[in-house]
Amino acid sequence: MNAGMDVFFLTMGAAMVLAMHAGFAFLEAGTVRRKNQVNAMVRVLTDFGFSTIAYFFIGYGIAYGTYFFAPVPELMQLGGKSNAYELVHFFFLLTFAAAVPAIISGGITERIRFWPNVLATVVLVSLVYPFYEGLIWNGNHGFQTWLNSMFGAKFHDFAGSVVVHAMGGFLALGAVIMLGARRGRYSKDGRVNAILPSNIPYLALGSWILCVGWFGFNVMSAGVAGAVSGLVAINSLLAMVGGMLTALVVGKNDPGFVHNGALAGLVAICAGSDIVHPIGALAIGGAAGVIFVFGFEIIQNRLRIDDVLGVIPLHGVCGAWGGIAAGIFGSTAMGGAGGVTFMTQLVGTLTGVGLAVISGFAVYGAIRAILGLRLSEEDEYQGADLAVHQVAAYPEEDMA
Amino acid sequence: MNAGMDVFFLTMGAAMVLAMHAGFAFLEAGTVRRKNQVNAMVRVLTDFGFSTIAYFFIGYGIAYGTYFFAPVPELMQLGGKSNAYELVHFFFLLTFAAAVPAIISGGITERIRFWPNVLATVVLVSLVYPFYEGLIWNGNHGFQTWLNSMFGAKFHDFAGSVVVHAMGGFLALGAVIMLGARRGRYSKDGRVNAILPSNIPYLALGSWILCVGWFGFNVMSAGVAGAVSGLVAINSLLAMVGGMLTALVVGKNDPGFVHNGALAGLVAICAGSDIVHPIGALAIGGAAGVIFVFGFEIIQNRLRIDDVLGVIPLHGVCGAWGGIAAGIFGSTAMGGAGGVTFMTQLVGTLTGVGLAVISGFAVYGAIRAILGLRLSEEDEYQGADLAVHQVAAYPEEDMA
Amino acid sequence: MNAGMDVFFLTMGAAMVLAMHAGFAFLEAGTVRRKNQVNAMVRVLTDFGFSTIAYFFIGYGIAYGTYFFAPVPELMQLGGKSNAYELVHFFFLLTFAAAVPAIISGGITERIRFWPNVLATVVLVSLVYPFYEGLIWNGNHGFQTWLNSMFGAKFHDFAGSVVVHAMGGFLALGAVIMLGARRGRYSKDGRVNAILPSNIPYLALGSWILCVGWFGFNVMSAGVAGAVSGLVAINSLLAMVGGMLTALVVGKNDPGFVHNGALAGLVAICAGSDIVHPIGALAIGGAAGVIFVFGFEIIQNRLRIDDVLGVIPLHGVCGAWGGIAAGIFGSTAMGGAGGVTFMTQLVGTLTGVGLAVISGFAVYGAIRAILGLRLSEEDEYQGADLAVHQVAAYPEEDMA
Repeated sequence: MNAGMDVFFLTMGAAMVLAMHAGFAFLEAGTVRRKNQVNAMVRVLTDFGFSTIAYFFIGYGIAYGTYFFAPVPELMQLGGKSNAYELVHFFFLLTFAAAVPAIISGGITERIRFWPNVLATVVLVSLVYPFYEGLIWNGNHGFQTWLNSMFGAKFHDFAGSVVVHAMGGFLALGAVIMLGARRGRYSKDGRVNAILPSNIPYLALGSWILCVGWFGFNVMSAGVAGAVSGLVAINSLLAMVGGMLTALVVGKNDPGFVHNGALAGLVAICAGSDIVHPIGALAIGGAAGVIFVFGFEIIQNRLRIDDVLGVIPLHGVCGAWGGIAAGIFGSTAMGGAGGVTFMTQLVGTLTGVGLAVISGFAVYGAIRAILGLRLSEEDEYQGADLAVHQVAAYPEEDMA
Repeated sequence: MNAGMDVFFLTMGAAMVLAMHAGFAFLEAGTVRRKNQVNAMVRVLTDFGFSTIAYFFIGYGIAYGTYFFAPVPELMQLGGKSNAYELVHFFFLLTFAAAVPAIISGGITERIRFWPNVLATVVLVSLVYPFYEGLIWNGNHGFQTWLNSMFGAKFHDFAGSVVVHAMGGFLALGAVIMLGARRGRYSKDGRVNAILPSNIPYLALGSWILCVGWFGFNVMSAGVAGAVSGLVAINSLLAMVGGMLTALVVGKNDPGFVHNGALAGLVAICAGSDIVHPIGALAIGGAAGVIFVFGFEIIQNRLRIDDVLGVIPLHGVCGAWGGIAAGIFGSTAMGGAGGVTFMTQLVGTLTGVGLAVISGFAVYGAIRAILGLRLSEEDEYQGADLAVHQVAAYPEEDMA
Repeated sequence: MNAGMDVFFLTMGAAMVLAMHAGFAFLEAGTVRRKNQVNAMVRVLTDFGFSTIAYFFIGYGIAYGTYFFAPVPELMQLGGKSNAYELVHFFFLLTFAAAVPAIISGGITERIRFWPNVLATVVLVSLVYPFYEGLIWNGNHGFQTWLNSMFGAKFHDFAGSVVVHAMGGFLALGAVIMLGARRGRYSKDGRVNAILPSNIPYLALGSWILCVGWFGFNVMSAGVAGAVSGLVAINSLLAMVGGMLTALVVGKNDPGFVHNGALAGLVAICAGSDIVHPIGALAIGGAAGVIFVFGFEIIQNRLRIDDVLGVIPLHGVCGAWGGIAAGIFGSTAMGGAGGVTFMTQLVGTLTGVGLAVISGFAVYGAIRAILGLRLSEEDEYQGADLAVHQVAAYPEEDMA
């Protein structure tokens, strides 16, 4: 009966993280211009689909196989014993893997071509993400042993502040730079031109779906019901609230900052949610809200990187902050459960960030060189909805 | 404690399938014209309400009672022992029964009268659906015994590809034909006039809600937590992805086809999700995506049947495909768990389809003869929102 | 393993009630005018955030501490043993506490100032709500003992018809009156001027989210999985349907009444969902639908109280009805499980209502005297979105 409960546990976790992909779709659709809403939603949905294929046939084996490119045998069986726990475990892990292209999508939206984006998704979810995932989460790899011997602890990333979010956010850096800014975003005379979002209620809906689903992302990362902890739940809650409230104040009541601030707190708490004190979680989330608002301004307005949804500060910087913060607030001195060291968290985080930055430039650079990444000027002007999908978001109205 | 876990298990399943009804509401509201959005949503909600009454007082007894029209005793008690598992089991089964009018609703929308539709819902959920449900899922009926003696196996429909989806989709055939096409849809000179959907984001939201809820529909069909299987989860995932991706390609990036393609895969996998190999599930779903796109075109443009949301191909044809496919991919020769035969699956499926087609013409034909089914020409032109509900979807704006 | 299952159980409950806050946000955003949609959503989100802080540091201690203002020790620990059940229990209870400002929000929307509203939220969730919550749900308080000795039973409010809903709804009475009606709502010559909602689909989405989440609110109020009951699930279902269908008929097909009618039934069944007969639940919900429609008309049009979403009739009056109805339909004479008396239910309900009415006038009256409650005439005319958040709901369009 234990096995049945665990399958139930992970089914709920997987369903909740699957729902988060709807959240990514609405967050993006609300933030882009109306002429790109359909494209945003179709890309998020189909990125999930191609991620499933890539991770099922290649990625999962790379992360957890006994050697590279070996398909993991249990996925090729019916898994009849023990309620086929391994199969739902695959589903749960896939929803994490598929978050990587969903994160990047928010940075490259409004001008990326459809099929080159699919190719990038397949490469990232087959190879890049699983490589780092295996380093950190597959107990058989030597990287953790090396970190432990050098810095006194293994790298602790309970639910993926670094493995998922910093990976996605810093992959987006290369993608956005290789792609270039949306036309009209930055003038040659140095001006920065705001491109206004189309729909705040969609943005808010996306944020709410992500917030709720995140409790599956974090709490079910325990893997089995017997290992679940109420501490993860309360820490996720307090970090979410911390991020929301500091973003409210620092972001001067802006609805985009408030709704994304909640997500910033949740990104940052993934790593240490099982070991930090609740007050530590509040602090980690609160800092993430501030980091997000300032990071967003700096990246978009100072560095002139057209990261449309702010995924580099949201997932990248706040994810890295979460990885490092677990080494600070997780220590017993700060009321945490211990078992972590600052140096391991720093080195493990920087390894992930470095891998993501390099891979982002490499993958998107190679695709740009071979296939091209950008919509034509005409297609971008017309909007990806009509250009790629031959239909607008509100056909009855828009075609009237 | 087992009983408590099972009640928890089915409560989550029932809540997820209840949520699917919100998915039906948004899928329909997004696909119809703006002047019928409110009516679509109110009908889906109140169909659920009337279905509950009909199934509680009559339908459940017909399906699972010891004899027809006998109310099942446990529903009339407090069910205090064993955490009242039977009562939440009723709730779970009801959410399936209520899916039948929700499916039909997408075919008959934009011109159906309100109260005649309620009457059809009550008849279908009291009598027609439970009759077939009892044949297949009530172990006491002789139909399964007969199939087993004739064709070597009982009919296998784990989560309702035929019992729910083909039933709903083929009931819609009679309903749509009895009702007739929307005015202006088909010209006398043979032209087919596109009537454009109002809101793709609502359509996408509906699809996402349905996709997520479907994991409750399928996985929790195990009934008790001890019988849950990760195989059902991964097969549902792969079929969903298969349907989405083939519909993307065959449907040429159309957002309606992509988002409905995911649902086509899920419809088709219900029957065999507990017995087919994951690669088989991918194939079943992939075929369903193709079937949906071509079926949609043929039914609407060749056969000139104005099935607005395409529920006949989506739920009807893909549901029948799922029932038959379980007999192919469920065989041990195809890597499945066996225990099924092609002939039983074919005969069981055709029985359900035949019953649905006949019942659809009979029920909607009788209501048309007695009460009339269609809105007046004037009401249809004005839109059901103002005609039936005295309010439009965006009152502040629309009444300005 | 029991502890793990219970943490899982309450995590799902807490996530579902957290989702209900998204439901409050969309129900409100859809009902207000377009110029106030952003403000509605930001206030609901940030009210949740400030409620978390208030309840974590003060409110929870007041309700369940050994004495007032004593922070409950387990929240300040990691709670490592027994899977930290207490911490997720806090999360679950918080989502109830935070419902109180979310309820009030629907009454005071479109003209409330942002920070005075935050102050009210903090006071109510720190002090007023936990005071009554402790009286009823903390077994250590003497109020229940007194009720038992006077009227033959303790006050039974299983999931908070009175503790949460009547509290929120009747707090809104003072808030709405202290605040005054929206400009133009009531003319000096006695006319009542309708202010039309902006978006029925958002309203419907909010209602659907609330309906689904409510099964977490009610069923998970069992606290531990071993105590869960299918009776709570079926009673919630039938009351929801009862409220929906009577509101449909009495409200003459109005979409606002139908979608809120479902909520009225759910509000009313919280108190007795674990003890009444399913038919009793249908009657309780059906009555609530009628009460809501008539209450809405009387309060808004006769009493000229500008309760925008109708939260006084929906949560206040229907919540009180639910508290009292548990004393009627919960009796063994009515097929219920017994253990309740009409007098205790009446006295307990009136105590909650009285406390809410007095506190509402006191808290909002004091804040009005000190800080002021209302937006300036100019800000109200312009809309809270631009006035408070410097951005409209559809910036691309609205700023064009």
